Amino acid sequence: MDLLKQRIIEEGRTIGEEIIKVDSFLNHQIDVGLFVEMGKEFRRLFDSKKITKLLTIEASGIAIASIAALEFGVPVVFAKKAQSRNLDKEIYTSKVYSFTKQITYDVMVSKKYLSSDDHVLILDDFLANGKAALGLIDIARQAGATVEGVGIVIEKGFQSGGKLLREQGIKVESLAIIDRIKDGKVTFLN
Amino acid sequence: MDLLKQRIIEEGRTIGEEIIKVDSFLNHQIDVGLFVEMGKEFRRLFDSKKITKLLTIEASGIAIASIAALEFGVPVVFAKKAQSRNLDKEIYTSKVYSFTKQITYDVMVSKKYLSSDDHVLILDDFLANGKAALGLIDIARQAGATVEGVGIVIEKGFQSGGKLLREQGIKVESLAIIDRIKDGKVTFLN
Repeated sequence: MDLLKQRIIEEGRTIGEEIIKVDSFLNHQIDVGLFVEMGKEFRRLFDSKKITKLLTIEASGIAIASIAALEFGVPVVFAKKAQSRNLDKEIYTSKVYSFTKQITYDVMVSKKYLSSDDHVLILDDFLANGKAALGLIDIARQAGATVEGVGIVIEKGFQSGGKLLREQGIKVESLAIIDRIKDGKVTFLN
Repeated sequence: MDLLKQRIIEEGRTIGEEIIKVDSFLNHQIDVGLFVEMGKEFRRLFDSKKITKLLTIEASGIAIASIAALEFGVPVVFAKKAQSRNLDKEIYTSKVYSFTKQITYDVMVSKKYLSSDDHVLILDDFLANGKAALGLIDIARQAGATVEGVGIVIEKGFQSGGKLLREQGIKVESLAIIDRIKDGKVTFLN
Protein backbone atom coordinates (compact mmCIF):
# COMPACT_ATOMS: atom_id res chain seq x y z
CA MET A 1 0.00 0.00 0.00
CA ASP A 2 1.91 2.99 -1.34
CA LEU A 3 0.29 5.61 0.90
CA LEU A 4 1.40 3.67 3.97
CA LYS A 5 4.91 2.97 2.69
CA GLN A 6 5.35 6.65 1.94
CA ARG A 7 4.39 7.53 5.54
CA ILE A 8 6.78 4.91 6.91
CA ILE A 9 9.63 6.39 4.84
CA GLU A 10 8.76 9.98 5.73
CA GLU A 11 7.95 9.59 9.42
CA GLY A 12 9.39 6.29 10.63
CA ARG A 13 12.33 6.53 13.01
CA THR A 14 14.67 3.57 12.87
CA ILE A 15 16.61 2.21 15.83
CA GLY A 16 19.34 -0.22 14.79
CA GLU A 17 18.41 -2.78 12.14
CA GLU A 18 15.26 -4.22 13.70
CA ILE A 19 13.14 -1.43 15.10
CA ILE A 20 11.06 1.21 13.39
CA LYS A 21 8.93 3.63 15.37
CA VAL A 22 5.83 4.90 13.61
CA ASP A 23 4.07 6.49 16.54
CA SER A 24 3.32 9.71 14.66
CA PHE A 25 0.50 8.01 12.73
CA LEU A 26 0.06 4.38 13.79
CA ASN A 27 0.42 3.52 17.45
CA HIS A 28 0.49 6.60 19.64
CA GLN A 29 -0.89 9.36 17.48
CA ILE A 30 -3.45 7.97 15.01
CA ASP A 31 -4.08 9.40 11.55
CA VAL A 32 -7.65 8.25 11.14
CA GLY A 33 -7.79 9.23 7.46
CA LEU A 34 -4.95 6.80 6.75
CA PHE A 35 -6.73 4.15 8.84
CA VAL A 36 -9.87 4.50 6.69
CA GLU A 37 -7.75 3.77 3.60
CA MET A 38 -6.12 0.83 5.37
CA GLY A 39 -9.56 -0.52 6.28
CA LYS A 40 -10.62 -0.36 2.63
CA GLU A 41 -7.45 -2.17 1.60
CA PHE A 42 -8.00 -4.94 4.15
CA ARG A 43 -11.57 -5.30 2.84
CA ARG A 44 -10.25 -5.61 -0.71
CA LEU A 45 -7.56 -8.13 0.27
CA PHE A 46 -10.04 -10.36 2.10
CA ASP A 47 -12.97 -9.74 -0.21
CA SER A 48 -13.32 -13.43 -1.08
CA LYS A 49 -13.75 -14.35 2.58
CA LYS A 50 -16.93 -14.37 4.59
CA ILE A 51 -15.93 -12.57 7.79
CA THR A 52 -18.18 -12.42 10.88
CA LYS A 53 -15.78 -10.90 13.38
CA LEU A 54 -12.56 -8.92 13.54
CA LEU A 55 -10.22 -10.10 16.28
CA THR A 56 -7.36 -7.97 17.55
CA ILE A 57 -5.34 -7.31 20.68
CA GLU A 58 -5.04 -4.27 22.89
CA ALA A 59 -3.83 -1.59 22.55
CA SER A 60 -2.65 -0.57 19.06
CA GLY A 61 -4.77 -3.13 17.23
CA ILE A 62 -8.00 -1.62 18.51
CA ALA A 63 -7.98 1.46 16.32
CA ILE A 64 -7.03 -0.53 13.22
CA ALA A 65 -9.81 -3.08 13.73
CA SER A 66 -12.42 -0.49 14.73
CA ILE A 67 -11.94 1.59 11.61
CA ALA A 68 -11.68 -1.53 9.40
CA ALA A 69 -14.98 -2.71 10.90
CA LEU A 70 -16.70 0.18 9.13
CA GLU A 71 -15.86 -1.61 5.88
CA PHE A 72 -16.55 -5.16 7.07
CA GLY A 73 -19.76 -4.33 8.94
CA VAL A 74 -19.02 -6.82 11.71
CA PRO A 75 -18.17 -6.49 15.43
CA VAL A 76 -14.63 -6.15 16.73
CA VAL A 77 -13.41 -8.25 19.63
CA PHE A 78 -10.19 -7.20 21.25
CA ALA A 79 -8.20 -9.63 23.37
CA LYS A 80 -6.99 -8.34 26.69
CA LYS A 81 -3.49 -8.73 28.02
CA ALA A 82 -2.63 -9.55 31.60
CA GLN A 83 0.41 -10.97 33.23
CA SER A 84 -0.25 -14.59 34.10
CA ARG A 85 -2.78 -15.10 36.89
CA ASN A 86 -5.73 -17.28 37.73
CA LEU A 87 -8.37 -17.11 35.06
CA ASP A 88 -11.93 -18.23 35.24
CA LYS A 89 -13.51 -20.80 32.98
CA GLU A 90 -15.49 -18.31 30.96
CA ILE A 91 -12.38 -17.16 29.12
CA TYR A 92 -10.29 -18.46 26.25
CA THR A 93 -6.66 -17.79 27.00
CA SER A 94 -3.28 -18.23 25.37
CA LYS A 95 0.24 -17.42 26.50
CA VAL A 96 2.26 -14.96 24.44
CA TYR A 97 5.95 -14.23 24.90
CA SER A 98 6.94 -10.65 24.14
CA PHE A 99 10.52 -10.34 22.91
CA THR A 100 10.35 -6.56 23.29
CA LYS A 101 9.25 -6.63 26.92
CA GLN A 102 10.77 -10.04 27.72
CA ILE A 103 7.68 -11.18 29.59
CA THR A 104 5.03 -13.81 29.02
CA TYR A 105 1.50 -12.54 29.27
CA ASP A 106 -1.93 -14.10 28.98
CA VAL A 107 -4.14 -13.07 26.11
CA MET A 108 -7.79 -13.42 27.01
CA VAL A 109 -11.12 -13.37 25.20
CA SER A 110 -14.46 -14.00 26.87
CA LYS A 111 -16.19 -17.14 25.59
CA LYS A 112 -19.28 -15.01 24.98
CA TYR A 113 -17.76 -13.24 22.01
CA LEU A 114 -16.25 -16.01 19.89
CA SER A 115 -18.05 -19.16 18.81
CA SER A 116 -17.83 -22.00 16.30
CA ASP A 117 -20.09 -20.00 13.99
CA ASP A 118 -17.51 -17.27 13.65
CA HIS A 119 -15.26 -16.62 10.67
CA VAL A 120 -12.48 -14.53 12.09
CA LEU A 121 -10.10 -12.05 10.52
CA ILE A 122 -7.21 -11.20 12.83
CA LEU A 123 -5.83 -7.67 12.49
CA ASP A 124 -2.78 -6.12 14.12
CA ASP A 125 -0.31 -3.31 13.66
CA PHE A 126 2.97 -5.27 13.53
CA LEU A 127 4.01 -8.80 12.62
CA ALA A 128 7.53 -9.67 13.76
CA ASN A 129 8.03 -13.09 15.34
CA GLY A 130 4.31 -13.84 15.12
CA LYS A 131 3.75 -14.65 18.80
CA ALA A 132 0.75 -12.34 19.25
CA ALA A 133 -0.91 -13.55 16.02
CA LEU A 134 -0.34 -17.18 17.02
CA GLY A 135 -1.93 -16.47 20.40
CA LEU A 136 -5.01 -14.99 18.71
CA ILE A 137 -5.20 -17.92 16.27
CA ASP A 138 -5.00 -20.31 19.23
CA ILE A 139 -7.87 -18.49 20.93
CA ALA A 140 -10.03 -18.48 17.79
CA ARG A 141 -9.43 -22.21 17.37
CA GLN A 142 -10.28 -22.91 21.02
CA ALA A 143 -13.63 -21.30 20.22
CA GLY A 144 -13.99 -23.58 17.20
CA ALA A 145 -14.06 -20.50 14.97
CA THR A 146 -12.61 -20.48 11.45
CA VAL A 147 -9.54 -18.28 11.01
CA GLU A 148 -10.01 -16.69 7.59
CA GLY A 149 -6.76 -14.81 7.68
CA VAL A 150 -4.40 -12.35 9.29
CA GLY A 151 -4.17 -8.72 8.19
CA ILE A 152 -1.12 -6.75 9.27
CA VAL A 153 -0.19 -3.12 8.80
CA ILE A 154 3.60 -3.53 8.94
CA GLU A 155 5.30 -6.91 8.61
CA LYS A 156 8.99 -7.22 9.41
CA GLY A 157 9.90 -9.48 6.53
CA PHE A 158 13.31 -10.17 8.07
CA GLN A 159 11.71 -11.83 11.09
CA SER A 160 10.09 -15.24 11.14
CA GLY A 161 6.42 -14.53 11.93
CA GLY A 162 5.12 -14.19 8.38
CA LYS A 163 6.83 -17.38 7.22
CA LEU A 164 5.60 -19.27 10.29
CA LEU A 165 1.96 -18.30 9.68
CA ARG A 166 2.02 -18.82 5.90
CA GLU A 167 3.59 -22.26 6.34
CA GLN A 168 0.53 -23.18 8.38
CA GLY A 169 -1.61 -22.32 5.37
CA ILE A 170 -2.92 -19.10 6.87
CA LYS A 171 -3.67 -16.27 4.46
CA VAL A 172 -1.49 -13.37 5.66
CA GLU A 173 -1.81 -9.99 4.00
CA SER A 174 0.49 -7.17 5.09
CA LEU A 175 0.01 -3.63 3.83
CA ALA A 176 3.76 -3.03 4.00
CA ILE A 177 6.49 -5.66 4.29
CA ILE A 178 9.86 -4.33 5.37
CA ASP A 179 12.74 -6.14 3.73
CA ARG A 180 15.44 -4.52 5.77
CA ILE A 181 16.45 -1.54 7.87
CA LYS A 182 20.02 -0.41 7.25
CA ASP A 183 21.78 2.86 8.03
CA GLY A 184 18.43 4.39 8.92
CA LYS A 185 16.95 3.47 5.53
CA VAL A 186 13.92 1.23 5.12
CA THR A 187 13.38 -0.94 2.04
CA PHE A 188 10.23 -2.90 1.29
CA LEU A 189 9.52 -6.34 -0.12
CA ASN A 190 6.09 -5.46 -1.54
CA MET B 1 -28.37 9.21 24.32
CA ASP B 2 -31.33 6.84 24.17
CA LEU B 3 -29.75 4.25 21.88
CA LEU B 4 -26.88 3.83 24.34
CA LYS B 5 -29.08 3.74 27.45
CA GLN B 6 -31.22 1.06 25.84
CA ARG B 7 -28.13 -1.07 25.21
CA ILE B 8 -26.94 -0.57 28.79
CA ILE B 9 -30.34 -1.71 30.10
CA GLU B 10 -30.56 -4.67 27.71
CA GLU B 11 -26.98 -5.93 27.87
CA GLY B 12 -25.32 -4.46 30.98
CA ARG B 13 -24.55 -6.91 33.75
CA THR B 14 -24.50 -5.36 37.19
CA ILE B 15 -22.27 -6.50 40.04
CA GLY B 16 -23.35 -5.06 43.38
CA GLU B 17 -24.30 -1.38 43.43
CA GLU B 18 -21.23 0.12 41.77
CA ILE B 19 -20.21 -2.02 38.82
CA ILE B 20 -21.81 -2.47 35.42
CA LYS B 21 -20.16 -4.60 32.75
CA VAL B 22 -20.89 -3.59 29.18
CA ASP B 23 -18.31 -5.69 27.41
CA SER B 24 -20.77 -6.99 24.81
CA PHE B 25 -20.69 -3.66 22.96
CA LEU B 26 -18.30 -1.18 24.60
CA ASN B 27 -15.04 -2.48 25.98
CA HIS B 28 -14.32 -6.04 24.89
CA GLN B 29 -16.59 -6.61 21.92
CA ILE B 30 -17.19 -3.35 20.04
CA ASP B 31 -20.38 -2.49 18.18
CA VAL B 32 -18.91 -0.10 15.66
CA GLY B 33 -22.32 1.04 14.40
CA LEU B 34 -23.15 2.28 17.90
CA PHE B 35 -19.72 3.94 18.10
CA VAL B 36 -20.44 5.88 14.90
CA GLU B 37 -23.63 7.23 16.50
CA MET B 38 -21.71 8.08 19.67
CA GLY B 39 -19.10 9.90 17.60
CA LYS B 40 -21.82 12.02 15.98
CA GLU B 41 -23.29 12.80 19.39
CA PHE B 42 -19.90 13.90 20.77
CA ARG B 43 -19.49 16.10 17.71
CA ARG B 44 -22.90 17.68 18.34
CA LEU B 45 -22.21 18.19 22.07
CA PHE B 46 -18.88 19.90 21.42
CA ASP B 47 -19.90 21.64 18.22
CA SER B 48 -19.17 25.10 19.63
CA LYS B 49 -15.57 24.13 20.37
CA LYS B 50 -12.62 24.28 18.06
CA ILE B 51 -10.95 20.90 18.56
CA THR B 52 -7.53 20.05 17.12
CA LYS B 53 -6.90 16.74 18.84
CA LEU B 54 -8.75 13.93 20.60
CA LEU B 55 -6.92 12.63 23.65
CA THR B 56 -7.74 9.29 25.23
CA ILE B 57 -6.12 6.47 27.16
CA GLU B 58 -5.50 2.86 26.28
CA ALA B 59 -7.20 0.50 25.86
CA SER B 60 -10.98 1.01 25.73
CA GLY B 61 -10.81 4.71 24.91
CA ILE B 62 -8.98 4.05 21.65
CA ALA B 63 -11.96 2.73 19.72
CA ILE B 64 -14.21 5.52 20.98
CA ALA B 65 -11.77 8.25 20.01
CA SER B 66 -10.83 6.67 16.67
CA ILE B 67 -14.41 6.44 15.46
CA ALA B 68 -15.25 9.89 16.87
CA ALA B 69 -12.26 11.26 14.95
CA LEU B 70 -14.12 10.50 11.72
CA GLU B 71 -16.56 13.24 12.76
CA PHE B 72 -14.00 15.68 14.16
CA GLY B 73 -11.47 15.24 11.37
CA VAL B 74 -8.50 15.53 13.74
CA PRO B 75 -5.82 13.10 14.96
CA VAL B 76 -6.23 10.89 18.01
CA VAL B 77 -3.50 10.64 20.62
CA PHE B 78 -3.78 7.84 23.09
CA ALA B 79 -1.90 7.95 26.37
CA LYS B 80 -0.04 4.83 27.34
CA LYS B 81 -0.13 3.21 30.74
CA ALA B 82 2.83 1.72 32.52
CA GLN B 83 3.53 0.91 36.08
CA SER B 84 5.84 3.56 37.48
CA ARG B 85 9.35 3.43 36.09
CA ASN B 86 12.02 5.80 34.83
CA LEU B 87 10.75 7.99 32.08
CA ASP B 88 12.69 10.07 29.67
CA LYS B 89 12.36 13.80 29.23
CA GLU B 90 10.51 13.57 25.92
CA ILE B 91 7.32 12.48 27.65
CA TYR B 92 4.55 14.19 29.57
CA THR B 93 3.51 11.97 32.43
CA SER B 94 0.97 11.93 35.22
CA LYS B 95 0.27 9.44 37.98
CA VAL B 96 -3.18 7.82 38.09
CA TYR B 97 -4.49 5.67 40.91
CA SER B 98 -6.81 2.87 39.81
CA PHE B 99 -9.37 1.95 42.47
CA THR B 100 -10.35 -1.15 40.49
CA LYS B 101 -6.83 -2.50 40.25
CA GLN B 102 -5.49 -0.79 43.38
CA ILE B 103 -2.31 0.29 41.68
CA THR B 104 -0.79 3.60 40.67
CA TYR B 105 0.34 3.75 37.09
CA ASP B 106 2.01 6.36 34.92
CA VAL B 107 0.06 7.82 32.04
CA MET B 108 2.38 8.94 29.27
CA VAL B 109 2.15 11.03 26.12
CA SER B 110 5.11 11.88 23.90
CA LYS B 111 5.84 15.60 23.79
CA LYS B 112 5.78 15.35 20.00
CA TYR B 113 2.02 14.92 19.87
CA LEU B 114 0.64 17.62 22.16
CA SER B 115 1.57 21.29 22.04
CA SER B 116 0.40 24.70 23.22
CA ASP B 117 -1.39 25.13 19.89
CA ASP B 118 -3.69 22.20 20.63
CA HIS B 119 -7.32 22.39 21.68
CA VAL B 120 -7.98 19.03 23.23
CA LEU B 121 -11.14 17.01 23.71
CA ILE B 122 -10.62 14.16 26.14
CA LEU B 123 -12.72 11.05 25.46
CA ASP B 124 -13.10 7.92 27.55
CA ASP B 125 -15.49 5.04 28.15
CA PHE B 126 -16.18 5.46 31.88
CA LEU B 127 -16.07 8.32 34.37
CA ALA B 128 -16.17 7.14 37.99
CA ASN B 129 -13.80 8.85 40.42
CA GLY B 130 -12.25 10.89 37.63
CA LYS B 131 -8.63 9.89 38.20
CA ALA B 132 -7.90 8.92 34.59
CA ALA B 133 -9.54 12.09 33.22
CA LEU B 134 -7.60 14.24 35.70
CA GLY B 135 -4.39 12.55 34.59
CA LEU B 136 -5.13 13.36 30.95
CA ILE B 137 -6.06 16.97 31.83
CA ASP B 138 -2.79 17.25 33.74
CA ILE B 139 -0.88 16.02 30.69
CA ALA B 140 -2.70 18.37 28.31
CA ARG B 141 -1.93 21.29 30.61
CA GLN B 142 1.75 20.31 30.89
CA ALA B 143 1.80 20.66 27.10
CA GLY B 144 0.21 24.10 27.42
CA ALA B 145 -2.77 22.83 25.42
CA THR B 146 -6.32 24.07 26.00
CA VAL B 147 -8.68 21.46 27.41
CA GLU B 148 -11.95 22.11 25.61
CA GLY B 149 -13.85 19.41 27.42
CA VAL B 150 -14.29 15.82 28.46
CA GLY B 151 -16.64 13.44 26.63
CA ILE B 152 -17.63 10.25 28.41
CA VAL B 153 -19.70 7.30 27.28
CA ILE B 154 -20.93 6.18 30.72
CA GLU B 155 -20.66 8.38 33.80
CA LYS B 156 -21.29 6.88 37.21
CA GLY B 157 -23.29 9.78 38.62
CA PHE B 158 -23.08 8.31 42.11
CA GLN B 159 -19.29 8.68 42.15
CA SER B 160 -17.36 11.92 42.50
CA GLY B 161 -15.52 12.28 39.17
CA GLY B 162 -18.13 14.28 37.28
CA LYS B 163 -18.63 16.75 40.13
CA LEU B 164 -14.88 17.13 40.57
CA LEU B 165 -14.32 17.99 36.91
CA ARG B 166 -17.35 20.28 36.56
CA GLU B 167 -16.34 22.21 39.70
CA GLN B 168 -13.07 22.98 37.92
CA GLY B 169 -15.10 24.61 35.15
CA ILE B 170 -14.49 21.81 32.68
CA LYS B 171 -17.26 21.07 30.20
CA VAL B 172 -18.13 17.40 30.78
CA GLU B 173 -20.65 15.69 28.53
CA SER B 174 -21.64 12.10 29.24
CA LEU B 175 -23.79 10.13 26.82
CA ALA B 176 -25.35 8.22 29.73
CA ILE B 177 -25.23 9.16 33.41
CA ILE B 178 -26.10 6.35 35.78
CA ASP B 179 -27.98 7.57 38.85
CA ARG B 180 -27.89 4.28 40.66
CA ILE B 181 -27.58 0.51 40.39
CA LYS B 182 -29.91 -1.35 42.73
CA ASP B 183 -31.13 -4.95 42.70
CA GLY B 184 -29.62 -5.39 39.25
CA LYS B 185 -31.57 -2.43 37.85
CA VAL B 186 -29.92 0.64 36.36
CA THR B 187 -31.52 4.09 36.47
CA PHE B 188 -30.22 7.13 34.64
CA LEU B 189 -29.89 10.81 35.52
CA ASN B 190 -30.07 12.09 31.94
